[in-house]
Amino acid sequence: MQRVVIVGGTHGNELNGIYLYHKWQQSDFGVNHPFQVEFCLANPQAMAACRRYLDQDLNRSFKPEDLNNPELSAYEAQRAKELAQALSGADFLLDLHNTTSNMGLALILSRAEALDDPLMRQLCAHLQKSDPLVSVYFMPNASDNNPYLPSVAKRDLTLEVGPLAHGTLGAELFFRTEALVQCWLNFLADWDKGQAPSYTGALTVYEFVRNLDYPRDANGLLTAMIHPQLQGQDFEPLAPGAPLFMDLNGSTLPFESQETLWPVFINEQAYYEKHMALSLTRKISVSL
Amino acid sequence: MQRVVIVGGTHGNELNGIYLYHKWQQSDFGVNHPFQVEFCLANPQAMAACRRYLDQDLNRSFKPEDLNNPELSAYEAQRAKELAQALSGADFLLDLHNTTSNMGLALILSRAEALDDPLMRQLCAHLQKSDPLVSVYFMPNASDNNPYLPSVAKRDLTLEVGPLAHGTLGAELFFRTEALVQCWLNFLADWDKGQAPSYTGALTVYEFVRNLDYPRDANGLLTAMIHPQLQGQDFEPLAPGAPLFMDLNGSTLPFESQETLWPVFINEQAYYEKHMALSLTRKISVSL
Repeated sequence: MQRVVIVGGTHGNELNGIYLYHKWQQSDFGVNHPFQVEFCLANPQAMAACRRYLDQDLNRSFKPEDLNNPELSAYEAQRAKELAQALSGADFLLDLHNTTSNMGLALILSRAEALDDPLMRQLCAHLQKSDPLVSVYFMPNASDNNPYLPSVAKRDLTLEVGPLAHGTLGAELFFRTEALVQCWLNFLADWDKGQAPSYTGALTVYEFVRNLDYPRDANGLLTAMIHPQLQGQDFEPLAPGAPLFMDLNGSTLPFESQETLWPVFINEQAYYEKHMALSLTRKISVSL
Repeated sequence: MQRVVIVGGTHGNELNGIYLYHKWQQSDFGVNHPFQVEFCLANPQAMAACRRYLDQDLNRSFKPEDLNNPELSAYEAQRAKELAQALSGADFLLDLHNTTSNMGLALILSRAEALDDPLMRQLCAHLQKSDPLVSVYFMPNASDNNPYLPSVAKRDLTLEVGPLAHGTLGAELFFRTEALVQCWLNFLADWDKGQAPSYTGALTVYEFVRNLDYPRDANGLLTAMIHPQLQGQDFEPLAPGAPLFMDLNGSTLPFESQETLWPVFINEQAYYEKHMALSLTRKISVSL
């Protein structure tokens, strides 16, 4: 482990990582580690506008064919090429996000092979032990061939912190995020020295099953909202027939499913345009 | 009372009023009243972009000299002229907003003379009785000569509903807003017939004192956040010396004041760019 990168501002209105970057730039955070710790602000123009992105979602701009396509001129397409070149080959990349959903401190694993990696499994167990808000969401995105920014590194984690309105700071989550990132750095240093704690037993993981959109009319307008009983219940079980949406007249639409699933990213603001009201996961145990 | 107007979407990412508009357009909401009830979406282009505004804040675009200035070509400057013409002379205008702050259902009175008006005082008392989330915030803005959109009507209320992340819907607040608007319409109809309930005693009002910005560095970046103990405590007393901000290192910055005041709009996302961390008010009693 020689080079570790912490990225903030992949989305320009997610202030948690952006302000941690500003804090760490002016402190000794990340020094005294046996490897180089770099900080990066991924999308400065979106940050200046306090918007998620200017032209397109930067975190969906890392398809290999797009990175090699000199014709793409959107701001984020160009920025993705610069970032891929600058960060390529980093040993570990941590990408700091925040969300309007009640995700707590969610570790997102977006590589199909992430759970086969002993370091990643042990790291997740260690981070989970450090803060009860930590959950592990396994969402391999190879299937849709749309890798995230952290895919340019050898290993990665996306950290989703919420609930927090985009464009705002929340002090409690700010300091819990910082403590978790410190914990992650310490674990990597210990792992390199062969001194990391070793966890046995099982790791609870929420594995992506499918996305659900809001009910909509022919014009794309929502005809129902997240049901009040489901709001904020990320990582909690949703049984078949349980309240899912409430339509604009106050009628409840139940969850149609053969099995209990665990919703995440419930009512995330940025996913309205992606046609995702929530993602459904299955709770699994992974052997440590 | 002949013509009453309900406005949504003055800010394009405040979905509560926008979706109430869509619902009411397709229903019989507002019929069977002795006056005409109109609905208006104020900023369609900002709504399409799901942003507060395109060029400038529409709700700060109603200075008389600006409305009469044919040179102003910003989208919202033009839209303000259209709205002023279309809505001018309405007897009552209700403007539906939402906020990331824990404002509940806040009635904002932005005319200096609002509390001298028996109808307005009785209406506020009536709405407050209908839902415990209702508070009355008196913020006469004549002083800064920057009147809001509703100033084009003879009487007005701005309803601020929160906490809600901009660009999202929250079912519970949606239906409570709808019930409150129905209550407002019923009261106006009863008032016109001389059958409105008559309240005596005192109305609790939070009167604007001053705004407070976040501590910032020379580049305008925040050096402190709302203190975790203050987050969500809108309309609660803030005593001299109580925790106000927390800086990025975790140190508490106390409230420097000679008197207890009542903060509102704590950590509202849209006010970061207006350099307002919160507004301070004084809790007063107004005789009914």
